[in-house]
Amino acid sequence: MRLVTYRSHVEAEARLGALVGDLVLDLEMFGEECGVPLPSTMLEFIDLGPQAVAITSKLIEEAEGIFPIGTAQPVANVKLLAPIPRPRKNIFGIGLNYTEHVAESAKSLDTSAELPRQPVIFSKPPTSVIGPDDAIVHNAAITQQLDWEVELAAIIGTRAKGVSREKALNYVFGYTVCIDMSARDCRRAGQWIYSKGQDTFAPMGPCVVTADEIPDPQTLDLWLTVNGVEKQRSNTAYMLFKVDELVADISQGITLEPGDIIATGTPAGVGAGMDPQEWVWPGDIIVASVEGIGTLRHPVVAG
Amino acid sequence: MRLVTYRSHVEAEARLGALVGDLVLDLEMFGEECGVPLPSTMLEFIDLGPQAVAITSKLIEEAEGIFPIGTAQPVANVKLLAPIPRPRKNIFGIGLNYTEHVAESAKSLDTSAELPRQPVIFSKPPTSVIGPDDAIVHNAAITQQLDWEVELAAIIGTRAKGVSREKALNYVFGYTVCIDMSARDCRRAGQWIYSKGQDTFAPMGPCVVTADEIPDPQTLDLWLTVNGVEKQRSNTAYMLFKVDELVADISQGITLEPGDIIATGTPAGVGAGMDPQEWVWPGDIIVASVEGIGTLRHPVVAG
Repeated sequence: MRLVTYRSHVEAEARLGALVGDLVLDLEMFGEECGVPLPSTMLEFIDLGPQAVAITSKLIEEAEGIFPIGTAQPVANVKLLAPIPRPRKNIFGIGLNYTEHVAESAKSLDTSAELPRQPVIFSKPPTSVIGPDDAIVHNAAITQQLDWEVELAAIIGTRAKGVSREKALNYVFGYTVCIDMSARDCRRAGQWIYSKGQDTFAPMGPCVVTADEIPDPQTLDLWLTVNGVEKQRSNTAYMLFKVDELVADISQGITLEPGDIIATGTPAGVGAGMDPQEWVWPGDIIVASVEGIGTLRHPVVAG
Repeated sequence: MRLVTYRSHVEAEARLGALVGDLVLDLEMFGEECGVPLPSTMLEFIDLGPQAVAITSKLIEEAEGIFPIGTAQPVANVKLLAPIPRPRKNIFGIGLNYTEHVAESAKSLDTSAELPRQPVIFSKPPTSVIGPDDAIVHNAAITQQLDWEVELAAIIGTRAKGVSREKALNYVFGYTVCIDMSARDCRRAGQWIYSKGQDTFAPMGPCVVTADEIPDPQTLDLWLTVNGVEKQRSNTAYMLFKVDELVADISQGITLEPGDIIATGTPAGVGAGMDPQEWVWPGDIIVASVEGIGTLRHPVVAG
């Protein structure tokens, strides 16, 4: 199932929908028609547990593309938001998680050339999240080194503490695309939250693909362009620490909760690694995709 | 005003209270008796804005210590929780914010001996928060270097983006005590969230003292003992970046929201800086105080 958070018009409340072909189906309204109560937000849906995904998928399948009047509309007519517009805790980010990106970072930033032996974890606050097509703000007062990073993001479905790698994927609800915007000149004594956690620095979406449709998250191409020029292209197969390892590792110390997001790191091709270095500026357009999930497109604007 | 979050008994819901002498006054119940609607949680109270503090203080003052039956009880009879048991985003932590701690860290950890030129920001997830007397969990599977850090924590009262240093304290709701527990051997390529963000690593409380009662937060003694032996003693006067600078600085890039918490850094005397180094272990008792706010006491237990 492909789930979205959307507004029918600018003033409307955010709603939970499922993408069915070119339609977005309002799950709360559809559930009402089917006699199965379904919630109106992504977090409430995730809180229902994995059964809700199976039940809802079945209801949609049984409808055979014919939905009660008023429950579905063309996706082109709605505004998609970040799937989880307001995460319950900071997004977990993973640094230095693709070999070639470790190498380019060591050349241009202050990181080690050695491959990390354990996941390198940082965070991005809920206030950094924006949805598809929203503007990324370039605040020239604090950065002249705004950089891009396309990433696969995993969304936790079930409370996880101390889980094993073998069982870790059972705790994943689904996957989305995240751009880990990074103001390289805002690092603070090596800490990354201020460089990666500013408002608008976590574009996410366009949808969540539930985990049943991505049984192996380590097989997905991902790529990013700036003004139509390809900057990054790789495959999640090249992650140093796979999604199951990340979930297991974080959960040894920190309780993962439904709706928590792990942005799993970016491959080579960031602006900091170019020679000469490249940054984005107001007027630039960043487009980022993960295979099987979708594409994000974001203008950079002056703040 | 001294505000607390508390339970009347183990099974009771968390309630918002004001400390009046040895009593804890239930603010929602007291407000009802006074004909002034007041909320039952700290976050809702903060959301009401600064007027709520003034109005509530006045109501309490006018009561002259005589409260309607059922609205107040001895604080000794209740269980105090963290003032904000579930922050809305990760706690902002500030590293290397006292001169002598910068020196001891450079000797024993992987940080620079130079004073930081800008605040060093990291984060601790909401899942790390515990209240007074709750156990700090020592998970021997992942750390043999569990360390202490006493800190003054500032709590944001009003949404803040791009505020000046001059106006920054207007955005502070109040202050509490935080222990920034740190598993030194869980740093990841220099990133601190995993070493400082584990479950139970953010003891907070025992109360919030509203900002009107602490007009200058840079005059407060703070100290910490382990098993009765004093390890840290300093004064917030020695912070490199003062509370107003921290609020102003973070808000340039990241929107601060009501209830957001900034743990302002620790003075010298952490275990990593001792020769030989000292760590806490199950059975140890950590006691931490900030002048004018209160004292936290936490046992360390095996996890």
